[in-house]
Amino acid sequence: MKKNFKLVKNALGRMVPDQVNGKPATPFPGVGKFQPIGNKAAPPIARCADYPDDGNKVVKDLKTALLKAGIKDGMTISTHHHFRNGDLVANQLFQAAAEIGVKDLMWFPSASFPCHAPIIDHLESGVIHHIEGSMNGPLGDYCSSGKMRGLGVLRSHGGRYQAVQDGEVHIDIAVIAAPTADPFGNSNGVTGPSACGLLGFALADSQYADKVIVVTDNLIDFPCIPWQIQGNYVDYVVVLDKIGDPAKIVSGTTQITKSPDRLLIAELAAKFVKQTGILKDGFSFQGGAGGTSLAFAIFLKEMMKEMNIKARFVRGGSTQYLVDMLESGLTDYILDGQTFDLEGVRSMRENPNHVNTSPFTSYNYHGKGNFASMVDVVVLGATEVDVNFNANVVTHSDGRLLHGIGGWQNCLFSRCTILPIPSFRDRIPVIVDNVTTICGPGELVDVIVTERGIAINPLRTDLLNAVSKTSLPIRTIEELKNETEEICGGKPDKPEFEDELVAVVKWVDGTVIDSIRKVK
Amino acid sequence: MKKNFKLVKNALGRMVPDQVNGKPATPFPGVGKFQPIGNKAAPPIARCADYPDDGNKVVKDLKTALLKAGIKDGMTISTHHHFRNGDLVANQLFQAAAEIGVKDLMWFPSASFPCHAPIIDHLESGVIHHIEGSMNGPLGDYCSSGKMRGLGVLRSHGGRYQAVQDGEVHIDIAVIAAPTADPFGNSNGVTGPSACGLLGFALADSQYADKVIVVTDNLIDFPCIPWQIQGNYVDYVVVLDKIGDPAKIVSGTTQITKSPDRLLIAELAAKFVKQTGILKDGFSFQGGAGGTSLAFAIFLKEMMKEMNIKARFVRGGSTQYLVDMLESGLTDYILDGQTFDLEGVRSMRENPNHVNTSPFTSYNYHGKGNFASMVDVVVLGATEVDVNFNANVVTHSDGRLLHGIGGWQNCLFSRCTILPIPSFRDRIPVIVDNVTTICGPGELVDVIVTERGIAINPLRTDLLNAVSKTSLPIRTIEELKNETEEICGGKPDKPEFEDELVAVVKWVDGTVIDSIRKVK
Repeated sequence: MKKNFKLVKNALGRMVPDQVNGKPATPFPGVGKFQPIGNKAAPPIARCADYPDDGNKVVKDLKTALLKAGIKDGMTISTHHHFRNGDLVANQLFQAAAEIGVKDLMWFPSASFPCHAPIIDHLESGVIHHIEGSMNGPLGDYCSSGKMRGLGVLRSHGGRYQAVQDGEVHIDIAVIAAPTADPFGNSNGVTGPSACGLLGFALADSQYADKVIVVTDNLIDFPCIPWQIQGNYVDYVVVLDKIGDPAKIVSGTTQITKSPDRLLIAELAAKFVKQTGILKDGFSFQGGAGGTSLAFAIFLKEMMKEMNIKARFVRGGSTQYLVDMLESGLTDYILDGQTFDLEGVRSMRENPNHVNTSPFTSYNYHGKGNFASMVDVVVLGATEVDVNFNANVVTHSDGRLLHGIGGWQNCLFSRCTILPIPSFRDRIPVIVDNVTTICGPGELVDVIVTERGIAINPLRTDLLNAVSKTSLPIRTIEELKNETEEICGGKPDKPEFEDELVAVVKWVDGTVIDSIRKVK
Repeated sequence: MKKNFKLVKNALGRMVPDQVNGKPATPFPGVGKFQPIGNKAAPPIARCADYPDDGNKVVKDLKTALLKAGIKDGMTISTHHHFRNGDLVANQLFQAAAEIGVKDLMWFPSASFPCHAPIIDHLESGVIHHIEGSMNGPLGDYCSSGKMRGLGVLRSHGGRYQAVQDGEVHIDIAVIAAPTADPFGNSNGVTGPSACGLLGFALADSQYADKVIVVTDNLIDFPCIPWQIQGNYVDYVVVLDKIGDPAKIVSGTTQITKSPDRLLIAELAAKFVKQTGILKDGFSFQGGAGGTSLAFAIFLKEMMKEMNIKARFVRGGSTQYLVDMLESGLTDYILDGQTFDLEGVRSMRENPNHVNTSPFTSYNYHGKGNFASMVDVVVLGATEVDVNFNANVVTHSDGRLLHGIGGWQNCLFSRCTILPIPSFRDRIPVIVDNVTTICGPGELVDVIVTERGIAINPLRTDLLNAVSKTSLPIRTIEELKNETEEICGGKPDKPEFEDELVAVVKWVDGTVIDSIRKVK
């Protein structure tokens, strides 16, 4: 299946396949250029007469639920990643599938993590054919090595919703791990021993999958309030001993950086936001859970206190730092897509102004607008950025696919996208002539902040004007690149690839923005 | 269009049309017998590129919004009825449509009220072709008189969701009146000067209509929290001076009955619930906002206090009485579909355990179960009931269509459905040989409670056993009927009808359960 396509050049000059895993694919035609046609996916009509009157959908185990859901060869099975590296469900799920004896499944996680390394056995044995979804760590490495039978397909959070909504991916069976659920299938992530905050990444799965299985380790009497996942979409409920390891649900990355360079970058980014006038009463921002982003938020917070202003909303991934802003009155709301620590979970449970969002509300590009474009400023990471401001977030400089996309692509639609990045890592330049993989087109990347200065995208004349009377260290991106190359002793080595494709990166609208090749 | 059908006999022996307003219709085949085929309706795929980046969808007036939404002859325009008799939007909407000059619209309200009498002018002038939706009062009377060009179609709250979800009704333009909204279209009913509680009746409209217009008299900065209606479904936002008259939003019916007979009936119903063991810790019930239902709830509440038990949940339509139960710890939750008074609105705004439900969660029969069948006991009104326990809730004894169905049909799926009704009204028997219009099949009506005794449906041998050792005044329904006829001086006069059909009543699954004829 992997080879059955032609390569065509997309609007960014990247060669991409015209078919992906047997389905026609559209080469990226430019931002906002793709016009979807047709209608949303339409799940089969169910009827109450086929469900228990007493609302009790509990079946004895995962294998029973999969069999009742009609699991068979070639089906697409989805999971969510709100447990991040603490997920205990996906491995049990595919173990059950292996015991049933089905083959060639497509696993459609919203993301996978190092804890999912055992999935490699199922890829090897044929239980799983391929994975479409972000692959952080070992599975990405496995994919990069060319061992997966199908192409990996990387989608943003919004792109995943779009793909399901538009019928590009048809989920046969969704398995939704829920920290609390009732026998009807209503479920949430804010309560229970494995509380992970919310279940937004599973929303599309619940709405569009043919069959939906909720697994929980905290079954309570109807009604489970709040019902972040609505039982009216759920077919079966399974009780497991443990669905997540709370100690690992919390991302390991939510530590403020201690690196003096990274702190400098974060401070520069914050000063940029202040001096360009973006930082004002009623503004909004989004930062990830990476160390530099967190440091940026802390600097911003201090500036906000000094200026006596508050944000209208901040977007999570929430952490204790955002929660502190909410609780100290520095923002009216947190609009949160995933909780990165237990303070985030607690706040979402207790505070109605800490609001549960979903990839539908926040990121779905095939909707009637989404929240991403209303955010005043967003700070994001990148593994590489090039002189055209194109950025990479999935492959390393050695070409290996080791990261997922998350909401990264979706966030680029904010009013000002800043990438605060070091100019080099391990003496390898981060600013390059051409990024290994384009995840975000340069026209949407507004500002690069490095420890050696700030480069503004020439398209953003408004920002260039705004900084003209400041003391900010504004440089061109070429200057930053050249200086970095001098320090590092030249351009970085190009990663060595085979011809064979191993994965594609989709844009937020389902078109193919780049291909990823097998590493030599 | 009205005449273009054959009459066929359904499973209850009622003659119903095989087409309704030009669409094929299925005669009711019995409860749970209809097997829907195919898939849910699939709205067109939208894309962010066609919506403003800043999220501001405000246009200057309703007429502009209708024109931008592409209003044209023959379209279906929907509204919700959370403002009940205080709605100020539907009349303005069709006035704007009349000014635009479109004709033959189908109005698809979740219900209409006496305040909508001006709509008759638009039916007469041809702006509106016909109405599908509950018609309380003047519009029902107009329909009954045979003056409407199409057939009226009465659907329950759940049936309306089902019809939209299943594509039986395609909404071209939904107009959603929202007490608070932001420029993106996020909206809610709990805040603002016209707060009406929630907007659940508009949920299907927002999800499935081609174009969605939110109208509000309280526009606030993004984000409007909570977003009971999600802006991601919304195309345009319009600000009006006033969308509802708060004094009339509150239903006029939310007064406890003062009639000694009705109080006796309510008390008998409550005693029945207690003595049959339905009333126990963790039970659930639903009562409407009618005087007898409210009195029933008060009796129940006193019994609960005496027994030192609490309900797991009570279903609203909420009133001050239910709110008092929640606040005094007599129930864990109110699962509320519409707020009937301002205490209900306040409670929903302030108390996370006063939960916003929708016809999707509560009543949609073409879902993977719904909440209705999990309710232990429900008390409902009826205009007539017959010796087979079939019940009527839409036509009067004179045959005129004067009431909507609401959630009535959906509630029949509860574990015990009780109709507490007087045995006669204005000396006209309520218990009859054959109801004028069957809204609910007898097999789902379990208990009739009158001031002259209680009749249990012979199908419910469990309930007959449960009362066998009690002192409850158990009678057969025939006994009640005969006694009532003696008091009233014979059977009631049969209403006189023409042959011409004016409306149909749909069952919860979209099949046709009965027809309504033109009154002579």
